[in-house]
Amino acid sequence: MISGKTTLIAHIGYPTEAFRAPMIYNPWFDAHGVDAVVVPMAVKADDYPVVLPSLFKLANIRGALITMPHKVTTVALLDECSTAVEIAGSCNAILKREDGGLVGDMFDGVGCTRGLRHRNFVFTGARCLVVGSGGVGSAIAASLAHDGVASIALSDTEPRSAEGLAARLLRHYPEVDVRLAANDPAGYDLVVNATPLGMKAGDPLPIDIARLSPATFVGEVVMKQEITPLLQAARERGCRYQVGTDMLFEMIPAYLEFFGFGTTTPEELRALARVA
Amino acid sequence: MISGKTTLIAHIGYPTEAFRAPMIYNPWFDAHGVDAVVVPMAVKADDYPVVLPSLFKLANIRGALITMPHKVTTVALLDECSTAVEIAGSCNAILKREDGGLVGDMFDGVGCTRGLRHRNFVFTGARCLVVGSGGVGSAIAASLAHDGVASIALSDTEPRSAEGLAARLLRHYPEVDVRLAANDPAGYDLVVNATPLGMKAGDPLPIDIARLSPATFVGEVVMKQEITPLLQAARERGCRYQVGTDMLFEMIPAYLEFFGFGTTTPEELRALARVA
Repeated sequence: MISGKTTLIAHIGYPTEAFRAPMIYNPWFDAHGVDAVVVPMAVKADDYPVVLPSLFKLANIRGALITMPHKVTTVALLDECSTAVEIAGSCNAILKREDGGLVGDMFDGVGCTRGLRHRNFVFTGARCLVVGSGGVGSAIAASLAHDGVASIALSDTEPRSAEGLAARLLRHYPEVDVRLAANDPAGYDLVVNATPLGMKAGDPLPIDIARLSPATFVGEVVMKQEITPLLQAARERGCRYQVGTDMLFEMIPAYLEFFGFGTTTPEELRALARVA
Repeated sequence: MISGKTTLIAHIGYPTEAFRAPMIYNPWFDAHGVDAVVVPMAVKADDYPVVLPSLFKLANIRGALITMPHKVTTVALLDECSTAVEIAGSCNAILKREDGGLVGDMFDGVGCTRGLRHRNFVFTGARCLVVGSGGVGSAIAASLAHDGVASIALSDTEPRSAEGLAARLLRHYPEVDVRLAANDPAGYDLVVNATPLGMKAGDPLPIDIARLSPATFVGEVVMKQEITPLLQAARERGCRYQVGTDMLFEMIPAYLEFFGFGTTTPEELRALARVA
């Protein structure tokens, strides 16, 4: 029940119609007696650099969830940011400090690695292929590096994008073996699709599926459908895998911790959520 | 249930802790299947001129309820305003036009006159005394003039305040007999307290109570307690009267109509509200 004492978490993007976060966070707040509410706020890209600092002038706002199209432009508006933000060059979480300054973090990668850990994936020594070096792929690579994998191969149809990410990774994690690669999944313990391929019917698969071994764990960021064509193919080969919404639900405990609301599990969130 | 499709109504003031509107509007929205939510937004006075226009850049905001300390400063931020705003010099309701322009209205007075009409007070020919010529008193006087009373006497410990209001009233309602007066209630059909007297224990009564006739209807704006010392005295004399929260609940249908959400009655609002 919203009152004048309720703490606001803005969920900022454009458009907002497909947002799921309010229906996941708010039932959890209700169930735990946390007097906070996630409020969708539709901000167009042109307005964002002016609107964001204004929103954080609200005395009862604690933080924000940031989504498309603002994840990259947010970085320049922060006073302080995490290594994940620096490597990803994008930000999906903002916390207001006591002094009003804005701290940014990026949980797309953590959502992926928390899910992997949850499924007993072993990070130490793992050889990983991340397909797609955009914001999400960069965040996932940063999180894998943070969690101690042995090597990260980067594949992108734009080589400059992969090269840039490789340089940023090595600046923060010089101990990791970072290299550029094709989309050939052979020889990896983990392959993650961090491209939008699978969103649209008829999209090509993001990897050369014939070369996928049953021993490889497959991660997916696309959440348009639960089992994407990539995951269908991985399942047929007997691979272990993680669906796109797993990343979403794994990310939320990280957000709750960041905002200081405690923590939870994806299982509890899924049980309470008013969305599939 | 808030989703990405939910329309926002900002409730803006500072501080927000004592806000009641979210607990009145939101249960009504729920009961009527209106996908909208009143969200408290705490904005300090210094930040307001920058924050308000930014908030209205949100594509999913339709309007705002404005309260202390922003009712006066809002006027300069509007693109269009009602006669009530012009006379009161203050605004407690903002609607975003299709083109993004801001339309202001002021419902403090309407809350009072709707309540009076509800209690069968006859406006035509009525002689009224409004004690207090601040924002609320000005709004009430404007609403009484709009509703066709014969005369409005204005009493204020600051004569300039009453003089200014008299001039603004006459500019818009030259047919009304507007005069300055003392706080002597004798000879009026209606006496309204629009001062804060009654908020604090030990406050003097706003009128010379010995001169109050049982035939006079007494209105009160103070809502700190249901029966203020003024209303207690009026009740003892057998006067008809209206309490401060009546004004509050009478105002809300006006807001709902202004925002385009339909309308309701104070009775239904009180039945659904999660506050006293």
